[in-house]
Amino acid sequence: MRVIGVVGGGQLARMMQPAAIGLGLRLRLLAEMAGSSAAQVIPDAVVGDYTDPETVATFARGCDVITFDHEHVPTAILHSLEDAGIAVRPGPDALVHAQDKAVMRARLGALGVPCPANEVVPDAAALIAFGDAHGWPVIAKTSRGGYDGKGVWKLAGPAEAAVPFDGLEGLRADAVVIAEEFVDFTRELSVLVARRPGGQAVVYPVSETVQTDGICTATTTPAPGLRADQVRDLKAMALRIAAELGVVGVLAVELMEARDGRIVVNELAMRPHNTGHWSIDGSVTSQFENHLRAVADLPLGSTETLAPVTVMVNVLGGSLGDLVAGLDDVFSHDPAVKVQLYGKDVVPGRKVGHVTAMGEDVEQTSARAWRAARYLMGESDE
Amino acid sequence: MRVIGVVGGGQLARMMQPAAIGLGLRLRLLAEMAGSSAAQVIPDAVVGDYTDPETVATFARGCDVITFDHEHVPTAILHSLEDAGIAVRPGPDALVHAQDKAVMRARLGALGVPCPANEVVPDAAALIAFGDAHGWPVIAKTSRGGYDGKGVWKLAGPAEAAVPFDGLEGLRADAVVIAEEFVDFTRELSVLVARRPGGQAVVYPVSETVQTDGICTATTTPAPGLRADQVRDLKAMALRIAAELGVVGVLAVELMEARDGRIVVNELAMRPHNTGHWSIDGSVTSQFENHLRAVADLPLGSTETLAPVTVMVNVLGGSLGDLVAGLDDVFSHDPAVKVQLYGKDVVPGRKVGHVTAMGEDVEQTSARAWRAARYLMGESDE
Repeated sequence: MRVIGVVGGGQLARMMQPAAIGLGLRLRLLAEMAGSSAAQVIPDAVVGDYTDPETVATFARGCDVITFDHEHVPTAILHSLEDAGIAVRPGPDALVHAQDKAVMRARLGALGVPCPANEVVPDAAALIAFGDAHGWPVIAKTSRGGYDGKGVWKLAGPAEAAVPFDGLEGLRADAVVIAEEFVDFTRELSVLVARRPGGQAVVYPVSETVQTDGICTATTTPAPGLRADQVRDLKAMALRIAAELGVVGVLAVELMEARDGRIVVNELAMRPHNTGHWSIDGSVTSQFENHLRAVADLPLGSTETLAPVTVMVNVLGGSLGDLVAGLDDVFSHDPAVKVQLYGKDVVPGRKVGHVTAMGEDVEQTSARAWRAARYLMGESDE
Repeated sequence: MRVIGVVGGGQLARMMQPAAIGLGLRLRLLAEMAGSSAAQVIPDAVVGDYTDPETVATFARGCDVITFDHEHVPTAILHSLEDAGIAVRPGPDALVHAQDKAVMRARLGALGVPCPANEVVPDAAALIAFGDAHGWPVIAKTSRGGYDGKGVWKLAGPAEAAVPFDGLEGLRADAVVIAEEFVDFTRELSVLVARRPGGQAVVYPVSETVQTDGICTATTTPAPGLRADQVRDLKAMALRIAAELGVVGVLAVELMEARDGRIVVNELAMRPHNTGHWSIDGSVTSQFENHLRAVADLPLGSTETLAPVTVMVNVLGGSLGDLVAGLDDVFSHDPAVKVQLYGKDVVPGRKVGHVTAMGEDVEQTSARAWRAARYLMGESDE
């Protein structure tokens, strides 16, 4: 494997490029538009529509294997690539579990993986019946096409039962509504696995993640306060899901820790994940390098941490329009903090970069990372 | 500073790209030829002759600042860029000390920096007089245009005194011959500094370097067996040289440790340097990131190490033509070793990559790095 085709021109594809450079692999990019985050840094970039079979097939002809920056390529297109003898990693039969939450819930349920109670509901009446059986509020989700908090609704009671069905119309035709038990969680966690075609897999330490309005804003790794047996069980569960689903590349298992102590699966993603960005600086092998190694069928790298604590904080578009100028403040206050900027125009609330701090102590390390992020968001120090 | 122009398309420019991606800086490359090591990974690459004033001036117009992958751009071209208002970092008045060993020796001598006895010799007779005064063998060097052991001669006695003058004819017109005292060194050392325009500077730990036929083949960082006062003095000396010469970017001070304990300066380089490649994996901030930060006038990053020992071994072209295939052996034997491949055709003896191992113990870490390098050179494990 020499030429890795990456569908999607966002920051995840962008951050694959440093890893590809070291490994001597060539990335070939199918980007939504010229000048996208990844197209700025990958010479072999073509612009095209990833939902058009012809475009994707033409793109794939120059590649030894195809992988993804996002999960939105239609399953039928991926099957036809495989039929044409092109390696797709993760393959469509695995990827569907990250594309379709109904498929994911059914499969995880069959595997006995702890999930919130859930049910596909065809209409408001069925949703109300679910809420009456499992209690209100109810979480309703579109099975396909949701992201960063979009396509998820928290419904207080039966009066709101029509909301997701109205919302779905604006989304997509192949989606259904899933009703899920509201989990009163105290925090979210994430476990990342990287897995090769033959089954070799590595798992990263469990991260604690902070979500704000459905967007990941910060992670702390390793997640504080977990018992050793919990860590062991969560890692084993993530490895098992990756194996059962036949994932190749990175799998992110997003979890909720409930007030009653239960830990249940919230979402799956099959690509490098925001909750693994800490690994660029904080691990011997970053999630991006292990994703590429997996996709290229090379032995996977050590997921050992380089510091007792690594805290990553997302930079969301704020009042500072010129992020590179903000680096002056960031680096003059902290010579050890690390920054990744995504090359995107600053739009309020948009993910435009992240910062990472490594240290001995959760509180101090977190304070350093947040201070750096605030500088880049144009907020004052205090 | 947003667009950094890099003159030279080799592996040093290539390894700047991961750092540029993180910092949100754009690299613009002037490469000797299409498909060069750096041009493979930098979208904005033009092919042209860096000795042609027009080519360089046209290239520079699209850049906020110009820096280098090598030291071979003629001083007159750099002066005319500065006259046109373009920032050149390091500037020509600093860079000349890395381009011309006669200028470097004169300046270091004036600064009282320990150097081997040396003298510019106009002819063989003068060289013989130098040898008779300082003892044989004598090291003769071309003042300009030497690299990787080329343009350096070890002369056993007066009978060989004409060799460098004959050799010089094949090199360049503006070069002279420098005679230097032969230093019976037990090992070579290297100290890297990064310095901003305003004078802020950081220094990396001292590295021990192994040279074979004039090519750096391995480094161990920190250099074993130095006393704390020696380390302090060497770092202070490197920082002083950077300041006195007005260096902006990375300065590498290459040193020889003589059998009698003296440590003298061998060479200066003003760009990321082979002896600093360990810092990609082994330091909080790599030499490439600090070079770019310095050139873009951003505050410099921490040079703290991430492990007690980091060993870098160069991969020289060997019997293995397909380096990516060799990664299978490397990574399956050692999940924690790191690799940088340069995207170059494998030619015997050519630098085509390097490997880095981090560990607790010099001997074990060195063994790991050498084993990985041997796999990539197509040599058997033992």
